[in-house]
Amino acid sequence: MNLERTRMLLGRVASGELDSTEALRQLALPDAESLSFATIDHHRALRQGFPEVVFAQGKTVEQVLAIATRLNGDSDGFLITRVQPDMWTPLAECFPQAELHRLGRVAYLPPASPPATRHGEILIITAGTSDLPVAEEAAICAKAFGGRVGRLTDVGVAGIHRLLSRGELLQSAAVIIVVAGMDGALPSVVGGLVAAPVIAVPTSVGYGASLGGIAALLSMLNSCASGVTVVNIDNGFGAAYAAARIIHR
Amino acid sequence: MNLERTRMLLGRVASGELDSTEALRQLALPDAESLSFATIDHHRALRQGFPEVVFAQGKTVEQVLAIATRLNGDSDGFLITRVQPDMWTPLAECFPQAELHRLGRVAYLPPASPPATRHGEILIITAGTSDLPVAEEAAICAKAFGGRVGRLTDVGVAGIHRLLSRGELLQSAAVIIVVAGMDGALPSVVGGLVAAPVIAVPTSVGYGASLGGIAALLSMLNSCASGVTVVNIDNGFGAAYAAARIIHR
Amino acid sequence: MNLERTRMLLGRVASGELDSTEALRQLALPDAESLSFATIDHHRALRQGFPEVVFAQGKTVEQVLAIATRLNGDSDGFLITRVQPDMWTPLAECFPQAELHRLGRVAYLPPASPPATRHGEILIITAGTSDLPVAEEAAICAKAFGGRVGRLTDVGVAGIHRLLSRGELLQSAAVIIVVAGMDGALPSVVGGLVAAPVIAVPTSVGYGASLGGIAALLSMLNSCASGVTVVNIDNGFGAAYAAARIIHR
Amino acid sequence: MNLERTRMLLGRVASGELDSTEALRQLALPDAESLSFATIDHHRALRQGFPEVVFAQGKTVEQVLAIATRLNGDSDGFLITRVQPDMWTPLAECFPQAELHRLGRVAYLPPASPPATRHGEILIITAGTSDLPVAEEAAICAKAFGGRVGRLTDVGVAGIHRLLSRGELLQSAAVIIVVAGMDGALPSVVGGLVAAPVIAVPTSVGYGASLGGIAALLSMLNSCASGVTVVNIDNGFGAAYAAARIIHR
Amino acid sequence: MNLERTRMLLGRVASGELDSTEALRQLALPDAESLSFATIDHHRALRQGFPEVVFAQGKTVEQVLAIATRLNGDSDGFLITRVQPDMWTPLAECFPQAELHRLGRVAYLPPASPPATRHGEILIITAGTSDLPVAEEAAICAKAFGGRVGRLTDVGVAGIHRLLSRGELLQSAAVIIVVAGMDGALPSVVGGLVAAPVIAVPTSVGYGASLGGIAALLSMLNSCASGVTVVNIDNGFGAAYAAARIIHR
Amino acid sequence: MNLERTRMLLGRVASGELDSTEALRQLALPDAESLSFATIDHHRALRQGFPEVVFAQGKTVEQVLAIATRLNGDSDGFLITRVQPDMWTPLAECFPQAELHRLGRVAYLPPASPPATRHGEILIITAGTSDLPVAEEAAICAKAFGGRVGRLTDVGVAGIHRLLSRGELLQSAAVIIVVAGMDGALPSVVGGLVAAPVIAVPTSVGYGASLGGIAALLSMLNSCASGVTVVNIDNGFGAAYAAARIIHR
Amino acid sequence: MNLERTRMLLGRVASGELDSTEALRQLALPDAESLSFATIDHHRALRQGFPEVVFAQGKTVEQVLAIATRLNGDSDGFLITRVQPDMWTPLAECFPQAELHRLGRVAYLPPASPPATRHGEILIITAGTSDLPVAEEAAICAKAFGGRVGRLTDVGVAGIHRLLSRGELLQSAAVIIVVAGMDGALPSVVGGLVAAPVIAVPTSVGYGASLGGIAALLSMLNSCASGVTVVNIDNGFGAAYAAARIIHR
Amino acid sequence: MNLERTRMLLGRVASGELDSTEALRQLALPDAESLSFATIDHHRALRQGFPEVVFAQGKTVEQVLAIATRLNGDSDGFLITRVQPDMWTPLAECFPQAELHRLGRVAYLPPASPPATRHGEILIITAGTSDLPVAEEAAICAKAFGGRVGRLTDVGVAGIHRLLSRGELLQSAAVIIVVAGMDGALPSVVGGLVAAPVIAVPTSVGYGASLGGIAALLSMLNSCASGVTVVNIDNGFGAAYAAARIIHR
Repeated sequence: MNLERTRMLLGRVASGELDSTEALRQLALPDAESLSFATIDHHRALRQGFPEVVFAQGKTVEQVLAIATRLNGDSDGFLITRVQPDMWTPLAECFPQAELHRLGRVAYLPPASPPATRHGEILIITAGTSDLPVAEEAAICAKAFGGRVGRLTDVGVAGIHRLLSRGELLQSAAVIIVVAGMDGALPSVVGGLVAAPVIAVPTSVGYGASLGGIAALLSMLNSCASGVTVVNIDNGFGAAYAAARIIHR
Repeated sequence: MNLERTRMLLGRVASGELDSTEALRQLALPDAESLSFATIDHHRALRQGFPEVVFAQGKTVEQVLAIATRLNGDSDGFLITRVQPDMWTPLAECFPQAELHRLGRVAYLPPASPPATRHGEILIITAGTSDLPVAEEAAICAKAFGGRVGRLTDVGVAGIHRLLSRGELLQSAAVIIVVAGMDGALPSVVGGLVAAPVIAVPTSVGYGASLGGIAALLSMLNSCASGVTVVNIDNGFGAAYAAARIIHR
Repeated sequence: MNLERTRMLLGRVASGELDSTEALRQLALPDAESLSFATIDHHRALRQGFPEVVFAQGKTVEQVLAIATRLNGDSDGFLITRVQPDMWTPLAECFPQAELHRLGRVAYLPPASPPATRHGEILIITAGTSDLPVAEEAAICAKAFGGRVGRLTDVGVAGIHRLLSRGELLQSAAVIIVVAGMDGALPSVVGGLVAAPVIAVPTSVGYGASLGGIAALLSMLNSCASGVTVVNIDNGFGAAYAAARIIHR
Repeated sequence: MNLERTRMLLGRVASGELDSTEALRQLALPDAESLSFATIDHHRALRQGFPEVVFAQGKTVEQVLAIATRLNGDSDGFLITRVQPDMWTPLAECFPQAELHRLGRVAYLPPASPPATRHGEILIITAGTSDLPVAEEAAICAKAFGGRVGRLTDVGVAGIHRLLSRGELLQSAAVIIVVAGMDGALPSVVGGLVAAPVIAVPTSVGYGASLGGIAALLSMLNSCASGVTVVNIDNGFGAAYAAARIIHR
Repeated sequence: MNLERTRMLLGRVASGELDSTEALRQLALPDAESLSFATIDHHRALRQGFPEVVFAQGKTVEQVLAIATRLNGDSDGFLITRVQPDMWTPLAECFPQAELHRLGRVAYLPPASPPATRHGEILIITAGTSDLPVAEEAAICAKAFGGRVGRLTDVGVAGIHRLLSRGELLQSAAVIIVVAGMDGALPSVVGGLVAAPVIAVPTSVGYGASLGGIAALLSMLNSCASGVTVVNIDNGFGAAYAAARIIHR
Repeated sequence: MNLERTRMLLGRVASGELDSTEALRQLALPDAESLSFATIDHHRALRQGFPEVVFAQGKTVEQVLAIATRLNGDSDGFLITRVQPDMWTPLAECFPQAELHRLGRVAYLPPASPPATRHGEILIITAGTSDLPVAEEAAICAKAFGGRVGRLTDVGVAGIHRLLSRGELLQSAAVIIVVAGMDGALPSVVGGLVAAPVIAVPTSVGYGASLGGIAALLSMLNSCASGVTVVNIDNGFGAAYAAARIIHR
Repeated sequence: MNLERTRMLLGRVASGELDSTEALRQLALPDAESLSFATIDHHRALRQGFPEVVFAQGKTVEQVLAIATRLNGDSDGFLITRVQPDMWTPLAECFPQAELHRLGRVAYLPPASPPATRHGEILIITAGTSDLPVAEEAAICAKAFGGRVGRLTDVGVAGIHRLLSRGELLQSAAVIIVVAGMDGALPSVVGGLVAAPVIAVPTSVGYGASLGGIAALLSMLNSCASGVTVVNIDNGFGAAYAAARIIHR
Repeated sequence: MNLERTRMLLGRVASGELDSTEALRQLALPDAESLSFATIDHHRALRQGFPEVVFAQGKTVEQVLAIATRLNGDSDGFLITRVQPDMWTPLAECFPQAELHRLGRVAYLPPASPPATRHGEILIITAGTSDLPVAEEAAICAKAFGGRVGRLTDVGVAGIHRLLSRGELLQSAAVIIVVAGMDGALPSVVGGLVAAPVIAVPTSVGYGASLGGIAALLSMLNSCASGVTVVNIDNGFGAAYAAARIIHR
């Protein structure tokens, strides 16, 4: 049961449309549902506003399909990240209405009662073209969480005028997600230009001493711009969720 | 010139109290002021809402005093973090009105026109008593940035009931800063309980395989709670600044 | 010669059923048997209660089959971990009675005289579905060592109520094995809830700053819950063996 | 309220010596007591059998004294590890009955009703003389938790006969704690010789590529002896607590 | 014998002022001079244009004085970096003419025939005030190697306008040395703005995940600006030497 | 518009061949061109003398072809590094005139008005045969940037006479690029022999403790030869670009 | 020209069989031979007693064949390590007499005049069956360098009696090579038992915290047995070469 | 009882000077002697030719004196490395005949019957003056083990002629110990020049990316010269012991 449907149910109780005994019954479903291989946290939507999101990496196709089916009970939809190559076809067959975003490796089935879109743009900035898959994961998830999403692509600091010429766009954003690999320098520049919250996402783009994204991660953690926060390497989903926590305040 | 004073000046122009030529003159001070050893970013207050904060570590006493003096021109006050042991006495002598917070290693001189306090509590949670200096740095800075601050101390996950019994406090916070060393597990539990933004601060509390806080940092970056963001080890200031970016939205 | 059969042989000597000369002859087999590529430690069963276990990774199919054959002399069975994909078919052909557990990558042929099952449950808790292969390895090995095994799956700390609602199960366990990747936070919570021995197994589940399980490993080594012990990343076998050392006390 | 005293109280209720109303009142003390800088977990003794232990590193003298005083309410005693040099004198003055173990950096005040000593020896083996402080911490803590402690000192693997000649001692131990720095090789040898649980404690003894104990830690995590478990570098306390979890089973 | 003096000697031979036998004798001094603890490389000045520079860290006061005395034979002067605190007074007493630069930890005694100053400015840019000691080391060494030195201080990327407003200065430099700690982002911005050679010097300024300068070092090695080269952490001397190699081409 | 063509255009204005209105129109193309997935920095050629270079790794074939097409507008050519195996055929089909260097993984289409070749040889030295792909990347890029390229191959320090016998070649070079894996020792020897700028390129050649080139990287950063600068592991392109910055001074 | 043939040639000069002019001509071949991709160090055999050995990893099949052909001029044979899978067939076709050791990944063509076998056994001990490929590389190379080779396989410290029962073999060896992965503990035990030189070879056998052999490497570098020396991970060749340096003394 | 004295005793038995009963009694002392904090390995001298060496770091003054006294029973002397500053005076007072080498941090009391000096020089080469303390430790220990020691100081690869001009010295050595910090390049050059065994000792000389000697250590482990072996950082003692194992063969 997701947050929107709980709100509606409570509204019907308030208006006398539904008596409280029945409401109680509908609410009294267990918070956690046990499959043999997973314990689904149905309570999360009430606690945090968004239902549990499925991380597909390390799971079998069968497990992902089974979890998705349970989550989609009552037409609450689902959001699956890190979809593995062999999962696209089974997902398309089982859930023809689902959106399959191959670049961002995300499968999304919107709930029947999707969350209202919030005011304030979540602006997603990328340093280079190779950072796009992570940015795409962030964009799709942010939308699923009720965000309005803007983009600014390939504006890394080696050609700083590409960023500076977009000052208005930067100033108008409610939250900014900055996605960068290699030297991870872009969030420091962005963080110094705006007053809005800035969430930095290091990517594994690079080679050699980039150490699979560790160089960018360390750079961002040591940002000389104050108050830039950081999520795990390639974690576009996490950045989107953090942005959603902010705009839903 | 800080944000509040700029607002007042523009208000006086709007009301006809001040003509625009004089206003322009007052605004036309250079954005960056060059000392021989520092380039002060006076423009930052307008760009980001808070003036430049001084990081005292690695600077000489003389440099810190000189920068503080410049920042405090027009009675705009200053905020100095990582104050070193030999700086307390000179700071007290030069700025008798300044607040000197030894535990948090922060010196704060409030501006003549302090920022209005924002709605929404910034709740600072610590896992253990040894994490207090970092939490204190966060608390003082958050207040200086206009935040209302609450605290929940020594509620690490090894005695999880200490945290769970404070559910109301958790749910009412606008932003939560979680400070923890050793296993860095607390933000994952908190992040799973609340819908508000959660900023995790790893501390260098621990020994051996804590690697000076790296263990806690990695744990937080890999939090199984979605959308938890992270700042540098022991960076209470950064967490406060990030919280301020959020509540000033 | 395994422990059970040695016990029986000594019993027959004690009862006069077998004279000591013959007993000596049967016991006088060399403790270590040399193949050209391996020195099998037949003495281990007497020293430690369980026969030598075969680690298949890095060995050829031929080597594994040869060692398994020798271990199974006198129908003492064998236990093989980290079975590689190309070994399943040859193992099935050579040892039709062997149990082949593909998820846990374990092949097990019970000895003719299996060890008696001990009192006290070994409870295996996993943080997420992706941790199941390691948990499965632990479960099968624990059973082979004479343990009674219980499970609690997908109860990571981001939805802490899933764990807390199972308090009775936790309190009744004799030994608890906690399997977790990513932030490795679960053993700290479990360790704070129970008095029983807790063995933490970090897994390589995660990406980016999880560093192949190092993040979870460090988190567990720095657990703020007292007396949690740790084994190598993905080492389900080792955790089961440690649990067996405890329940056989 | 510690475990022993709770047992006695319940015994008095059972025998009619105490009525249940008064018993309830005595039990109804809050589980967690809040000082301004610490939240003491009084409930832990009931949950785990031992009261909360104080980790003195990173705390001020005043904080340690205050926490010790609260823990010692009802004469329940206290156990403080990592006592810092400036704490010995104040501790001696405030708690003249406390045992002060300088080598192991432990202060111990036994409770009025100490736990009964358990059967089964906890044998503490050290590889070299320089590992003694960590072994001492383990020994004192193990005793405080009701263990019977034996020792075997300076029997590192470079002179393996020193260990092998003590086979009887090894075989008779209920739990073995092995403390070693440098190559951390000793737990592998011990683990292969005995059937009892083996807890390995890496120490920071060494230099250069010992990396402050990381070399020994890694060696122990990769032990070729099955089922050896590991605690943090220099964590004698943790090893003792783990041993106590086992012998109290 | 330094480069300038060798040039003069050869000029005197060419002009007939000196006969070649005597010239040969003067040149025939051994290239390497052996003290008991050092082998001085007198040949280096001819091979590379600058005499051997003394790295004082890890040497005793006596060793440094003895080496300096030998290098200063024939009034060729010396350059000593990483001067340790206890060396200032003895150096001042033995070499009253030497310049002692405490901030940069450098002692410099110019040779009687100093190298001609080259065309083209070596511009030294620092991200923050705390980076000044390293920048100072670079500046003094660069001058000693015949460079003309300019400076731009405290222009880190969090206030990018401080850098961008100095475009003319940037464009006119022959070589640029960029000194930065923390995120090490500044060289990427500078490297994208200019065509001149850019040498990046990471500093150990920072804390926590800056890992003593490793974060800045990795960031610079992964610079998204093309052709930025890097020297060791805090190695102002090395950057100056590299710049000298370029301007002496 | 590349640098050469801008020079010609300005020349035609100077000579009256072109009126300034038309020149302005031709120059007035936007500096940055936005594709949906990339923001091409056309201004770079004017700022730095060379057009933007495409890093193919992490991009799709389609993205690379589209960017190459845009860069080649006005027949300005392109330079693509880290060409992936599936890109050779499409590149050959779309750009039949392009040079495809498989060993060095570089595709190069010279502009219609290539830059004049500069005086001074860029000498590329390799320690071993396995370092050749990186050296080749450097050589092709250096030529594209207007350099004259020499080579010295397989002269690692384990047979130092192979290097020393080529003294004349070493002394005559304007810039030296030294490519080495394993111990990364060669740049220290070369750097001690010559006065010219030395750029060290660590390679990932090696195994075990070479850590993918980190060993060679660290060795080069700690070179005992003064003023050796370093680029990222396997970054032949970066070394060539740095050399070009120097020879274009 | 190898060492044996040079010895014979000089003997023929000494006996008058060959005049010195012709001898000089035969010796006057260049020490280093340049292919386009390699500089062969023919001088090495005279300098070190063994000809250059080819490291095949990172080279193409064509390069390896060409180098082998040159080395085998004058029937001096060759030794190639790290032979890649696609090289076996071409090597077999070009050099039918060559020995192809697939397990050890070595191809060896003995020279027409092989070196005399030295006194003193090189004993190669392995901890486990999975360490055999590295041990095999060491064995073949040691034989090629004139060594007499013995073996002791799968005698890891978890079953220490397997090693101790072979004391005579250990005591009689001239040099001992100990090959071990995982905890790398075996060289410490061996090093404490014998007076002979002990060379430790860490292997990449293991998983998780073995970090690709780093754990074993660190353990060996910190061996509590005195005077154990170490080579790179999996470097069986290097250990054999080091042993050859010793027995040829 | 050391090796020399055992030899003499057996000689006296052989010559009839001593009857075997008495000889047995003298030999029948226990191999390991237990102090409360140490188990002295008296058997080591017979097993390895040299008595146990004391590593003073991490031991108290009292422990070191007590162990030294026991080792010196029967006037067998002692060798103590890593002597701490507060130990010099007590050692001088207790053992006036002992040699105290402050630079190398070694205290040595020669046995009454010192070992005969072996043929063959142990040549100790250092890269720089700052490496001298480690080289000194090696030199003193090597002499104590019966070696003849030569030295070559400050001949790092940045001035390679300083090394090459000493070819004869290099060629005549029986074993070479190469001590180097920073880039650790020297052993690769030396290893390529000589046929003798080469033992490389990395030192912690350096800063920044030298990582306390790790850079030099990695460089040496990856030496492109074949058969160079390595000991721990700053482990001069270990190198000397390894050299002694070789010359005593």
